[in-house]
Amino acid sequence: MEASKIVLVGAGNVATHLGRALREAGHDILQVYSRTEESARTLAQALGTDFTVRMDEVRTDADLYIVAVKDDALAEVLPRLVRRNPAALFVHTAGSISIDVWKGLAEHYGVLYPLQTFSRLRPVDFSRIPCFVEASTPADTAYLLRLARQLSGCVFAASSEQRLYLHVAAVFACNFTNHLYAVCQQLLEEHDLPFEVMLPLIDETARKVHHLSPAEAQTGPARRGDTNVMEHHLQLLHDRPELAAVYDILSKSIYSMTHHD
Amino acid sequence: MEASKIVLVGAGNVATHLGRALREAGHDILQVYSRTEESARTLAQALGTDFTVRMDEVRTDADLYIVAVKDDALAEVLPRLVRRNPAALFVHTAGSISIDVWKGLAEHYGVLYPLQTFSRLRPVDFSRIPCFVEASTPADTAYLLRLARQLSGCVFAASSEQRLYLHVAAVFACNFTNHLYAVCQQLLEEHDLPFEVMLPLIDETARKVHHLSPAEAQTGPARRGDTNVMEHHLQLLHDRPELAAVYDILSKSIYSMTHHD
Repeated sequence: MEASKIVLVGAGNVATHLGRALREAGHDILQVYSRTEESARTLAQALGTDFTVRMDEVRTDADLYIVAVKDDALAEVLPRLVRRNPAALFVHTAGSISIDVWKGLAEHYGVLYPLQTFSRLRPVDFSRIPCFVEASTPADTAYLLRLARQLSGCVFAASSEQRLYLHVAAVFACNFTNHLYAVCQQLLEEHDLPFEVMLPLIDETARKVHHLSPAEAQTGPARRGDTNVMEHHLQLLHDRPELAAVYDILSKSIYSMTHHD
Repeated sequence: MEASKIVLVGAGNVATHLGRALREAGHDILQVYSRTEESARTLAQALGTDFTVRMDEVRTDADLYIVAVKDDALAEVLPRLVRRNPAALFVHTAGSISIDVWKGLAEHYGVLYPLQTFSRLRPVDFSRIPCFVEASTPADTAYLLRLARQLSGCVFAASSEQRLYLHVAAVFACNFTNHLYAVCQQLLEEHDLPFEVMLPLIDETARKVHHLSPAEAQTGPARRGDTNVMEHHLQLLHDRPELAAVYDILSKSIYSMTHHD
């Protein structure tokens, strides 16, 4: 596809990772806008482009404006932004914000949502980040799908409602999973075992669901309905009532899911 | 080390995977014993050795007897087994059974516990399976550590109490984690999204804790204390009260762990 002329609105994690990936794909990042001069300058320098902290200096000649600001800043930013170039395409990058936030403001609009666990402490390979696209017209959807596929090997069209559930599902599969790793680490270190002993099993647990469905891959005392082992485990956790509660509710959830089908 | 002469007592998953790994390491599997003729024959054929279903035919000339039977069969099997060759070394492979189960029965005894998620549906690379060793004398411990290190790159000495907590920790990091993947799959499929969209994030979540501690890697609404997002997610789960309960208790557990330090 032809190179697009793009303005990045926002200079945080998402804008930074998206900006780098777009630039590598050959697009023309005209400008970075952020209310915070330091982050605007840092990102603009990294991308070899200009920046501004004033909305009335935002370039009016871009094809695409990508808004990656905090959710609670959108209401203030969007109307002022669209007025700069009403015929352009506008997208935001927020998983839990509906596409309708643009309604009545812009003519061409959409969402480009990278489902990420960006952490400043770790570099990210954008090509492995699932991206979800939604737009106001089929032509705009097609354009955004093409653009996203230049950045990531994992691109889908998804409605605003689907994005909401994607976000909840990601909390279960990533945030909550990481917390279980943290619980595991606490239990091991309290008994003088290094967390590293669990890494092969953690890896295998993640690898397994590439080949089996999670339901097929389920093992353990709750799956077998082995109440002796579960009661013994709850006794071992008697001085950690909050962990015992987690153990109990997850065991019940496994049992009800696997004995329901 | 010199090849050991080994009798396998049991012919299930653990005996099968251990037997194959021991044979590949050059040890001499003299015989397989199992009460079930079919499984005894199958494993003996796979290992190119003999089998018996009669305890009074178990070979009396082995160096090492490895017992991998169901936990509730141990009490019956162990005394009869030890009588066959009282001077040999005896180990069981059960994570949650104390080494003391051998006390008063054998002179040389121990535990060789592979912390596994063996599933019949997937082959396993034994060299990646963490193994935990315990024995009645320092010399027996040293021998079992050497033996285990021929099979696995990840071998530790661990007491019976440590093994109990290892097992609980593995339930959190593997069984419960897999269940969160299953919840994720349900939520996605209910909204016409394939589970595969979550695999890159699942992989990244597991990879991250090779480099950061799980506490450092924690992200998400509960980590940030973002009550708006959490309440919104609970609303989205209003027709799934059991999942809402899991969401609620894990969010509280994250919050209390990360705001405690």
